[in-house]
Amino acid sequence: MTLVHLVLVLALVEFFFFLNEVGRARGRYGVKAPATSGHEIFDRIFRVQMNTLEQLVIFVPSLLLFAAYVNPTIAAGLGALFIIGRALYYRGYVRAANQRGTGFLISVIPNAALLLGALVGILLALSRHYA
Amino acid sequence: MTLVHLVLVLALVEFFFFLNEVGRARGRYGVKAPATSGHEIFDRIFRVQMNTLEQLVIFVPSLLLFAAYVNPTIAAGLGALFIIGRALYYRGYVRAANQRGTGFLISVIPNAALLLGALVGILLALSRHYA
Amino acid sequence: MTLVHLVLVLALVEFFFFLNEVGRARGRYGVKAPATSGHEIFDRIFRVQMNTLEQLVIFVPSLLLFAAYVNPTIAAGLGALFIIGRALYYRGYVRAANQRGTGFLISVIPNAALLLGALVGILLALSRHYA
Repeated sequence: MTLVHLVLVLALVEFFFFLNEVGRARGRYGVKAPATSGHEIFDRIFRVQMNTLEQLVIFVPSLLLFAAYVNPTIAAGLGALFIIGRALYYRGYVRAANQRGTGFLISVIPNAALLLGALVGILLALSRHYA
Repeated sequence: MTLVHLVLVLALVEFFFFLNEVGRARGRYGVKAPATSGHEIFDRIFRVQMNTLEQLVIFVPSLLLFAAYVNPTIAAGLGALFIIGRALYYRGYVRAANQRGTGFLISVIPNAALLLGALVGILLALSRHYA
Repeated sequence: MTLVHLVLVLALVEFFFFLNEVGRARGRYGVKAPATSGHEIFDRIFRVQMNTLEQLVIFVPSLLLFAAYVNPTIAAGLGALFIIGRALYYRGYVRAANQRGTGFLISVIPNAALLLGALVGILLALSRHYA
């Protein structure tokens, strides 16, 4: 389970980096708080942050439940893929909005696998319990 | 506790559905990334997603702590109500902004109950420990 | 660990208060849903909420992992500082955008300490395991 916790923390470190990039982009592109829009590149970095926020709310519990109900090593592997996919998503999206697709899929597919795997694992555990 | 985990995962599956609806609404209403506004119906679906994100950050830990410190069956019941409320919120909000109230309340009241119940349960556990 | 859970729940109660303030500010400053912008003070309260949402996604798992791998009392202390910092952030930001810095730092620094401390604690646990 420690390896799963490492993957979890690394995903949060990556998100912390995205938050920091948004802060730096405020200065670089002159987007003054409380605005969250105003320069095309700022807007794209901000969207990387927001989209990753949405994904993390699913990722953190799904990773832990998949590890508990299915398999911790597979959970860590899917989680590592998620982190790599998010890095590619960031790199692509900063370059151009239409280059965000690959990284998006490489992060969202393992995230969906963690969520659905956790669901199946929980349902199997319940069926064993009531069988 | 497995039933509580099932409710947790189902709430995340519902959120995943909302994320997907935002993606589909981008195409349908011509709101190109990185914009998150531009068409009234898109804006409402996007708000369902964002508001659910805010609620989930409270919901996930509150559900687990309520289950641990108060009662897992009541936690699962309040959690199920939250999921139903969010579905009604989505259906109402997509129809019209002023029809979002009922679903909002049916999801926010059980969420507040989970949060405050967890708080009371923790305070009682601490008072027992130091008494 | 109960003290850590208390800190966690209090941070969520504070966030619930921010969510509620955004709702009240909608009425007070005439920002009708689904808009999330339109009046300077509303915009600033909304940013307090969104920024706290981002921080909480890091805070909740980092607090628990720091408590498990490093030390629960230090985790609770850093968590309490985070809550105080967020209150100052709210108070400052509502007054003026350029008064948000102090509260921001008092909440983000302990949050980063929880995250990095958890990372170090996990790495040490892994190195002990494989040594």
